[in-house]
Amino acid sequence: MAHTAFGRLTLGVDPADWSPYAQSVQGLVGQLAETAVDRDRQGGTARLQRSWLRESGLLNLAIPAEYGGGGASWPLILAITRRLAEADSSIAHLFGFQHLQVASVLLFGSPAQQSEYLTATVKSNWFWGNAVNARDTRLQASRDTQGVIVLQGSKSYCSGAADSDVLAVSVALGERPQDRIFAVVPTGRAGITVHDDWDSLGQRQTDSGTVSFEQVRIDPKEVLGPPGVASSPRATLRNIIGQLILTDIYLGNAVGALQAAIKFVQEEVQPWPMSGADRAVEDRFLQLRVGELWTQLRSAIALANEVNHEFQQAWERGSALTEEERGVLTLSVGASRAHAAEVALHVTARIFELLGARATARKYGFDRYWRNVRVHTLHDPLDYRRRSIGDWLLTGSIPDPYGYS
Amino acid sequence: MAHTAFGRLTLGVDPADWSPYAQSVQGLVGQLAETAVDRDRQGGTARLQRSWLRESGLLNLAIPAEYGGGGASWPLILAITRRLAEADSSIAHLFGFQHLQVASVLLFGSPAQQSEYLTATVKSNWFWGNAVNARDTRLQASRDTQGVIVLQGSKSYCSGAADSDVLAVSVALGERPQDRIFAVVPTGRAGITVHDDWDSLGQRQTDSGTVSFEQVRIDPKEVLGPPGVASSPRATLRNIIGQLILTDIYLGNAVGALQAAIKFVQEEVQPWPMSGADRAVEDRFLQLRVGELWTQLRSAIALANEVNHEFQQAWERGSALTEEERGVLTLSVGASRAHAAEVALHVTARIFELLGARATARKYGFDRYWRNVRVHTLHDPLDYRRRSIGDWLLTGSIPDPYGYS
Amino acid sequence: MAHTAFGRLTLGVDPADWSPYAQSVQGLVGQLAETAVDRDRQGGTARLQRSWLRESGLLNLAIPAEYGGGGASWPLILAITRRLAEADSSIAHLFGFQHLQVASVLLFGSPAQQSEYLTATVKSNWFWGNAVNARDTRLQASRDTQGVIVLQGSKSYCSGAADSDVLAVSVALGERPQDRIFAVVPTGRAGITVHDDWDSLGQRQTDSGTVSFEQVRIDPKEVLGPPGVASSPRATLRNIIGQLILTDIYLGNAVGALQAAIKFVQEEVQPWPMSGADRAVEDRFLQLRVGELWTQLRSAIALANEVNHEFQQAWERGSALTEEERGVLTLSVGASRAHAAEVALHVTARIFELLGARATARKYGFDRYWRNVRVHTLHDPLDYRRRSIGDWLLTGSIPDPYGYS
Amino acid sequence: MAHTAFGRLTLGVDPADWSPYAQSVQGLVGQLAETAVDRDRQGGTARLQRSWLRESGLLNLAIPAEYGGGGASWPLILAITRRLAEADSSIAHLFGFQHLQVASVLLFGSPAQQSEYLTATVKSNWFWGNAVNARDTRLQASRDTQGVIVLQGSKSYCSGAADSDVLAVSVALGERPQDRIFAVVPTGRAGITVHDDWDSLGQRQTDSGTVSFEQVRIDPKEVLGPPGVASSPRATLRNIIGQLILTDIYLGNAVGALQAAIKFVQEEVQPWPMSGADRAVEDRFLQLRVGELWTQLRSAIALANEVNHEFQQAWERGSALTEEERGVLTLSVGASRAHAAEVALHVTARIFELLGARATARKYGFDRYWRNVRVHTLHDPLDYRRRSIGDWLLTGSIPDPYGYS
Repeated sequence: MAHTAFGRLTLGVDPADWSPYAQSVQGLVGQLAETAVDRDRQGGTARLQRSWLRESGLLNLAIPAEYGGGGASWPLILAITRRLAEADSSIAHLFGFQHLQVASVLLFGSPAQQSEYLTATVKSNWFWGNAVNARDTRLQASRDTQGVIVLQGSKSYCSGAADSDVLAVSVALGERPQDRIFAVVPTGRAGITVHDDWDSLGQRQTDSGTVSFEQVRIDPKEVLGPPGVASSPRATLRNIIGQLILTDIYLGNAVGALQAAIKFVQEEVQPWPMSGADRAVEDRFLQLRVGELWTQLRSAIALANEVNHEFQQAWERGSALTEEERGVLTLSVGASRAHAAEVALHVTARIFELLGARATARKYGFDRYWRNVRVHTLHDPLDYRRRSIGDWLLTGSIPDPYGYS
Repeated sequence: MAHTAFGRLTLGVDPADWSPYAQSVQGLVGQLAETAVDRDRQGGTARLQRSWLRESGLLNLAIPAEYGGGGASWPLILAITRRLAEADSSIAHLFGFQHLQVASVLLFGSPAQQSEYLTATVKSNWFWGNAVNARDTRLQASRDTQGVIVLQGSKSYCSGAADSDVLAVSVALGERPQDRIFAVVPTGRAGITVHDDWDSLGQRQTDSGTVSFEQVRIDPKEVLGPPGVASSPRATLRNIIGQLILTDIYLGNAVGALQAAIKFVQEEVQPWPMSGADRAVEDRFLQLRVGELWTQLRSAIALANEVNHEFQQAWERGSALTEEERGVLTLSVGASRAHAAEVALHVTARIFELLGARATARKYGFDRYWRNVRVHTLHDPLDYRRRSIGDWLLTGSIPDPYGYS
Repeated sequence: MAHTAFGRLTLGVDPADWSPYAQSVQGLVGQLAETAVDRDRQGGTARLQRSWLRESGLLNLAIPAEYGGGGASWPLILAITRRLAEADSSIAHLFGFQHLQVASVLLFGSPAQQSEYLTATVKSNWFWGNAVNARDTRLQASRDTQGVIVLQGSKSYCSGAADSDVLAVSVALGERPQDRIFAVVPTGRAGITVHDDWDSLGQRQTDSGTVSFEQVRIDPKEVLGPPGVASSPRATLRNIIGQLILTDIYLGNAVGALQAAIKFVQEEVQPWPMSGADRAVEDRFLQLRVGELWTQLRSAIALANEVNHEFQQAWERGSALTEEERGVLTLSVGASRAHAAEVALHVTARIFELLGARATARKYGFDRYWRNVRVHTLHDPLDYRRRSIGDWLLTGSIPDPYGYS
Repeated sequence: MAHTAFGRLTLGVDPADWSPYAQSVQGLVGQLAETAVDRDRQGGTARLQRSWLRESGLLNLAIPAEYGGGGASWPLILAITRRLAEADSSIAHLFGFQHLQVASVLLFGSPAQQSEYLTATVKSNWFWGNAVNARDTRLQASRDTQGVIVLQGSKSYCSGAADSDVLAVSVALGERPQDRIFAVVPTGRAGITVHDDWDSLGQRQTDSGTVSFEQVRIDPKEVLGPPGVASSPRATLRNIIGQLILTDIYLGNAVGALQAAIKFVQEEVQPWPMSGADRAVEDRFLQLRVGELWTQLRSAIALANEVNHEFQQAWERGSALTEEERGVLTLSVGASRAHAAEVALHVTARIFELLGARATARKYGFDRYWRNVRVHTLHDPLDYRRRSIGDWLLTGSIPDPYGYS
């Protein structure tokens, strides 16, 4: 009973919106959980699990109904991301990033491109990867006289590129933000090599390794736009979606960790002799500590829920979205991500004090939650997000929508 | 501009629900702020400020429209409480507790009593006080042969009794929870003395002193019920309202403190020589620290907002509310209050690091926020609320609805 | 028994060094404690208590034996400062700053000046005040043709100037650090006015108000030196002594707060019903929280003790002290002060959770510890001290010995 | 330069006491560091590294000079343990536990046994393992008519048993503390099997697996005593040594982590674009965070240093040590271990925020510090140690010297 309420209290969307997806999501969660510890140890590409996502139809959630997709709201997509992350946050990351690439098409692409790429995504069950990392400037682009763009070099942190059908590729053609292009390229195109070189201490199956490009040709019509990148405040919502996905992955890990810990205490932990309790679950100190962790977790989830809805409102504003609205939203998103990071680091580290020494055996894999969060929270330095918030409150400056703010 | 968004981001209710009250609330906030520092120093009964509340009509917000009241939702009432607390958390407490006593009539009173007392409240602009503290057993009651109840003794922590028109009085007639009665008694009744003995280090104008009763006679029809106290899970919602008010008062203090601090930094603080900044607001360390405080504050407000809405749903369930639903709600409320307490203690203490040594002059009164929160967060020990949450998650036990859980 | 060990465990000096002073210090502590709550409320100059310090002989501790002083080590002087601060941290501050001014004479003064001023201090029971605050540039100095320096203007934060016999006065005669002079001036000299304008929220009897100078003449021989200010790394030890005194005052407040809280729990607090304990002292949650506070306190005291001894070694190095040794010492001192500040803010705020709501009555004065620490920890921004430490560890930069580092 | 001071500031013993060992310790640290990341991944028995310890002579440090040992003080042994843990905390644990077993002989053994076993340890370069875990009651003992004790069953957490020469074995012959015996048994004795079943998420080369005993015969003269276990307050110092070793291993990990992080920032990290700095080491936020981590670390090290010396005094008191002295010491030790645990968990987790995402590649092994600390801090629940401290301060109760207090 506790766990039922646990789930309901942390859902973040109206139960009526959730219920059509409840069964398939819960099914995936169950399947993923069975092998999550083993796969965390092995790392590498989770082909089987990716095939489950493809078959689930959930990869099309962000695609508008007119192209055959689910037409789901972002809070719902993010709630599912979070729930998947309770069991397996690598797979949840791949899931979330699918929708991030779909959003790129919706934000940057022309109506015709939207129709073409999104219809194809639904029809062919495309799984999207990316080669977008703006800080990695090793990938260079040149344009020939026909307007064909030729890519040469490589990108790091290309999550989900392995076993993908199509890649979102971003590269700078000049110095200005608007000179950055976003292109859609089949992963199998000649000259593209997806390297199996991701071996991090957490998020071990996100395949966030290197993609190299050897004279890869991009047709002008594969470049998204108009409106294209940096066309309006709305266009910069892409970055924000990425932040929201990260946030919910932190939280999914924390929820998963606390749930797993509670189960272990209930089933495996012996009461400490000095507790005077017959069962470990009756140890008042364990109860206190669980209450503390839950309290923090609830606060982070409540903020994420609120901000996910704030984002949806901005999304629905469409091209009417102003720079200031977008800027203020960024600050909410930054606060939520920074808080979720702190809480998730704390919860995933502290569950061990409930579990005791025996639970450190590697077979249980209880440290994977912390490792996942620790890796993911380093995406960009949170102190600079905190500083942007303070800058806004103190000076009224709205953060620069391009780059890491 | 920053401050406008500040307010909007922390509102907690739909702006459309807020707007009818925006002007009168904002007017009160402005008036209260003018003398808040002085009145904090003086303590005592804020007769003038109480008269403003009476005149504002806002004391009737919780009263259903059929009795002439505002028929407002609890999230709205609590949002107003929070906003008032930004300027003056003693007055906000009196404001919130007015609605708590009105809720007592709605939860415990018969339809006739509701009609009588609430119509009179609207008509005569009653300000309600209370003498309810369940832990103070010095007040004794006996029943004579006509059923008249005679009160003898005293109660502590009788917030708002001074300058009140009517008192909610609670006393035990036996050992069981249902033997506790709630009565409505004019403050001026013979034998009642409201003592001016509240001199705490914070919340200095809540008049939370002693009320003594010397052979005070209560007519049976002044005892609320049926349904009366402890009649159903619904009836125990009264305690929860008290918790929600406390929570929003913590948060109002924290918001008020951070706003005041930002203003002081903008207007009064010189940049620290080692900052390399021309203005204090550009000091990166101050920006970072403001960002950290805001992040925590947002998390606590988001949780309070979410829980206030959870409460409203339970309130609207009426007599269909189950013990389990009520129990799970309690845990949300406990988590929110515990988190808000931590955050508000932190924010109100840490603003000084933005302000610098000069701001410790008593004339500024910047410490009142912390003192208010420090006093109010001791209402009952939060560790026992945390433990209840852990007990529920670990063993599935729903907290006892009576007493402090 | 607990309290005996409490004192011994936190002493910081060899018990054999302590024992000659134990009785007089403990006597003072007892006397100060009797009226500390009342005097905190009143503020103003503590003439009676200052007279006790004068009579105790302890004001001469830092003066070498050859001038009739106690010749005590700095760890001992600081241990006494800390102990006095357990009862009354305003008086402890005045006590500590006496030795700071004596140190100024020892560091900056010529042998003849040392002999003159320190012998007079012992003989006439001088209590030293100061007008030194380097950040307040309103005090201006000019030199006439005879070399007489004329002071005009004012200084803020002149702790201990009221009721003092002699003032350490610092003023800049030029732009360079070495152009700053330190002079010794009788407080009663024509043109000097000590204003009674200190009304802070804590440290209420340190008289840290304004001293104004109206054409005050300083004879060249009243200017300390040679060697004078900024003559060597050794000379910059003065600033460090100030930091050490602040640190021990934070800690004294924290120890005093925890001791007072434990006593109150033992004597006054009723057990919380849900604790299942017969006495509050047996409540496991209170035991846990006391254990947490003690643990933090011990860590801060241990670091302060260690650093006080580090300082004594540097002091004893005399003119052999190198810039680097002085720099590394500064970082230890900064770490200790920053840590003590955090711990003391925490302990003095959290004792209330042991004490309960009833203890917030102003008559108990339990908030004075936090207010004292809150005011004192703002002397200069601790983030810049933390940053200096990080700068050193990352780049190897030794902090600038002048100014606030 | 920074690092030289880093080491000196955290040494904890007089440099003159350290210098005879400085070269061999520093040599070991260097050798261990070369392969620490690889060996952390592999786990298993570190036979080569254990051989270096044997050859170093440092395994004999705790043995009195009269038996050919180093006659070193405990603060020195613990300082070396801490330093080894900077590079490799599994090896440091084995090193520390060698001295714990030696201490068992010194505390429990008769003069003849001390002479026999300790002389043999020096002469034959014995490496001691243990099978002592008091909470594992699967190992049973019976005594035959000749007084021979027969062991049957198994013990978990037998750190260092693999590749050891001799085992300290503890088993209960009855219910009372004094019925617990400590025996010295060659690891190779018939019936003893050391299992290679330690596969934890940290401390991966401590071989803390299972030892099983199949009808293993213990001669009465192999049982340590008189005085034997539980003979006096002094005898219970063994438990305390174990706590001190744990504490210094936490701190060694934290120092190692911070040093490695600083080096990586200096050599590998690119400045964040928004920092405005040319080099990452000049990023003010990184400087601030390093300063914060160092400050906490210094506090924990200072407390551990102080407590290690407190322990040495108790050790030197010999049989004059009283129950109360021993009890108060326990509380110091508990405070130090609890504080070190918090700080080490924090520092080892937070270094990643200095390092950035790239440093999460497994090849760097930066997470091993946290994993080591996380595992080791679960030896027994620290909340019960904190509670013992609070119990003492509130009620005056001295903790039970037997078992986990």
